[in-house]
Amino acid sequence: MANQKKDFVKEITPQKEDFSRWYIDVIKKANLMDYAPVRGCIVFKPDGYELWEACQRHLDARFKATGHRNAYFPLFIPESFFQKEKEHVEGFNPELPWVTEAGGEKLEERLAVRPTSETIVGHMYAQWIHSYRDLPVLINQWANVVRWEKRTLPFLRTSEFLWQEGHTAHATEAEALAEQAQMLDIYTEFVESILAIPVYKGRKTELEKFAGAVSTFSIEAMMKDGKALQGGTSHYLGQNFAKGFDIKFLDRDNTLKHVYTTSWGISTRILGALIMVHGDDRGLALPPRIAPTQVIVIPIGPQNQRESVVSHAEELQSRIRNMGISVNMDSREDLSPGWKFNEYEMRGIPLRLELGPRDMASSQVVLVRRDTGEKLFVPESELPSRLPQLLDDIQHNMYNTAKKFRDDNSRVAHSLPELVETISTQRGFVLAGWCGDDACETATKDACGATSRVIPFEEPEHFETCVVCGKKAAHSVWFAKSY
Amino acid sequence: MANQKKDFVKEITPQKEDFSRWYIDVIKKANLMDYAPVRGCIVFKPDGYELWEACQRHLDARFKATGHRNAYFPLFIPESFFQKEKEHVEGFNPELPWVTEAGGEKLEERLAVRPTSETIVGHMYAQWIHSYRDLPVLINQWANVVRWEKRTLPFLRTSEFLWQEGHTAHATEAEALAEQAQMLDIYTEFVESILAIPVYKGRKTELEKFAGAVSTFSIEAMMKDGKALQGGTSHYLGQNFAKGFDIKFLDRDNTLKHVYTTSWGISTRILGALIMVHGDDRGLALPPRIAPTQVIVIPIGPQNQRESVVSHAEELQSRIRNMGISVNMDSREDLSPGWKFNEYEMRGIPLRLELGPRDMASSQVVLVRRDTGEKLFVPESELPSRLPQLLDDIQHNMYNTAKKFRDDNSRVAHSLPELVETISTQRGFVLAGWCGDDACETATKDACGATSRVIPFEEPEHFETCVVCGKKAAHSVWFAKSY
Repeated sequence: MANQKKDFVKEITPQKEDFSRWYIDVIKKANLMDYAPVRGCIVFKPDGYELWEACQRHLDARFKATGHRNAYFPLFIPESFFQKEKEHVEGFNPELPWVTEAGGEKLEERLAVRPTSETIVGHMYAQWIHSYRDLPVLINQWANVVRWEKRTLPFLRTSEFLWQEGHTAHATEAEALAEQAQMLDIYTEFVESILAIPVYKGRKTELEKFAGAVSTFSIEAMMKDGKALQGGTSHYLGQNFAKGFDIKFLDRDNTLKHVYTTSWGISTRILGALIMVHGDDRGLALPPRIAPTQVIVIPIGPQNQRESVVSHAEELQSRIRNMGISVNMDSREDLSPGWKFNEYEMRGIPLRLELGPRDMASSQVVLVRRDTGEKLFVPESELPSRLPQLLDDIQHNMYNTAKKFRDDNSRVAHSLPELVETISTQRGFVLAGWCGDDACETATKDACGATSRVIPFEEPEHFETCVVCGKKAAHSVWFAKSY
Repeated sequence: MANQKKDFVKEITPQKEDFSRWYIDVIKKANLMDYAPVRGCIVFKPDGYELWEACQRHLDARFKATGHRNAYFPLFIPESFFQKEKEHVEGFNPELPWVTEAGGEKLEERLAVRPTSETIVGHMYAQWIHSYRDLPVLINQWANVVRWEKRTLPFLRTSEFLWQEGHTAHATEAEALAEQAQMLDIYTEFVESILAIPVYKGRKTELEKFAGAVSTFSIEAMMKDGKALQGGTSHYLGQNFAKGFDIKFLDRDNTLKHVYTTSWGISTRILGALIMVHGDDRGLALPPRIAPTQVIVIPIGPQNQRESVVSHAEELQSRIRNMGISVNMDSREDLSPGWKFNEYEMRGIPLRLELGPRDMASSQVVLVRRDTGEKLFVPESELPSRLPQLLDDIQHNMYNTAKKFRDDNSRVAHSLPELVETISTQRGFVLAGWCGDDACETATKDACGATSRVIPFEEPEHFETCVVCGKKAAHSVWFAKSY
């Protein structure tokens, strides 16, 4: 108890004081992760990994419902494979870790630890695909990948991270493009409806797209410090990898053609978004649909009535569990109710149920919402209808709150000085016109650190001129500082 | 269709002719795996990976039901960590792959790609455990691991493989020993009741135990060629890793003590056992409780009645699905019923449901069991009771058949010549007395290639003397050639 109490006084830095310190304080205090003894790597502790498992369950069900199946490809990729797609090797080479020795011997060819698997998947697809009858190939992989990044931040950017990577092959460009769009829609639906995070959907610019892709679609979320975080990405690879790895099929018209491929992924960095979109100075706040524990039951009351309260709380707990709601109880005697209230608020449990002798006497319970702090006195008999409804309310309220914040901090700019001013003095995203030139795109970064996030599919506002050069605008672009 | 037909004529080598070729033929033909372009690695194709996913579901539920939680530790382990447990480093050093360069630079300290995670887990536990209140720590990890093996065989021994590794820490030796025993029981129950594979449970000898363990428990199964395959293992690590990594806690009596740790794992090699215990010359045979598809529906009949048969078969399919049975239908028109019968037998689907116009007229279906080949005419109205019962029958019959084979091929020997003779002329396991000396244990290997598998917990027969030296026997030991 001494230890636990000591831990608890370790305060969380307020967001306004130092958002980065707030983030680290929260993920450490909520026991989500620890730093590993390997540069840029973290350990996913059970409370953090459980969030990833919940994401996996939701995503995996969606992938399977759209006809994808899981497979597993090797961790190691021979060096020569990276040479087969020129842009890909240029993009990833600087970040690769190399296995050069194994089993006591120096290897003849170095093996990269996979940063992503397009190359090895491409090599295998070339063996598997022969005819139009073999298409489409719709495969997903849950795996660890490694990118030796210079600057790392827990969950957001770590040397090793966990993700899923889908790899599909199609007979036609149209089918591949439909797959790319479908998978971005699946990510969007998951992130918005389960994680309660609103996103801007769009296309990456040439400079920001995936190394080797024809086009990259992305969803971009706004953190509470106004910075952007890229959620899932979905790439249309055209025939780039098909040509590099010679993936050909005999089509119905009896001619040999290269396939069209896509790849798409979402990683454990999405946990960083979950924390930075909903968390506050009291700690984590988890939307009910992703929270491993939706309701925490805390029996309270004097020692002499403890037994009957706890026993009734246990009964309530199992009734709630039978409603299909995930619930836990904390009846530890050596910790005060106040300590527990703070603890489960800090851990982001959406709903707290308090039960004391007086509540029992009047057949009611006290419910406290993590999102609003609202306290509700609810008759026990109404729990079966009220609890699911409340959890739904919390889910929607969290989404709406995040959306309001996002919208309030999404602005427009018509000139570079205006863009710089807005980014520098007001946090958030700035929409502006862009002519399409790389030079104008990088100018914003040089001027204020904001990069192009996406060319939105739905243009909230149309611009006539490029925010940098003043020539005719080709697109609207969301600019922001980003993680 | 041309392609598919051509594939199909590729015969499966009969088991009696060449068991190893049979194995490779089956796993290739059933589309479970492919060889990867990295030495000793395989690709788990969707049909193979799906079997592993089914194992994961069953095991993960059992781990969680016994209080374990999942976490994730880094893939890379600093070289210095391996030096901290002497036996561990000696056991694993020869098999380690080393990352020596990353991000364009030579690393100051080489990083091993994990062969198992006791060392890095030990390092983290030392940070996390301070008081008896922090114990027990019950963590599991689903991960890929790499061991640069000299000889590899798909699923059974690959450079990279998938597994789970549990790592627990306890305040007392008794608790750690109870954990070790509990996890072996969980493996046993899973392997016997879900995979329908009977096992011998026991303790490994000093020579065969895990590098760094005080004791290793193992379950050993017999393949159809009589060889042994080690299923799950559960290790009691005593205070070996606790001392190496300085994992200490303040106990209730206010003294600092080292914790007691265990580790336990089961890997994708269990898929090899599943194939080699139940498969036959027609291909795979999957026990219903692990089969991703339990029933395959095949509509048959002349072209002019096709539509009504297929539509009724679809209806049956959804009724069967609603019984909680996993079912698929193959209504492809360009493939003959005979081709499909062979195909799904080869893929090991436990039950085939055939439906033709005459069956429809008499409101019945034809069911064909994969295990016995038995053909049953079952009224549609009886499907809700007969199908679950039949799947249960198949499950138990497959277990009993495997057990009979195992028991028929388990023999005893009272002298080394008898042991050598039995192992060399009759396949299977041999039980014999053993004095406990390493030299006598290795003598059997030198003489006939059989190694000690386990010292069984339940001694089927007691021996007075060591099968090699004739001195007093300390234990009975199962000897066998093994994978």
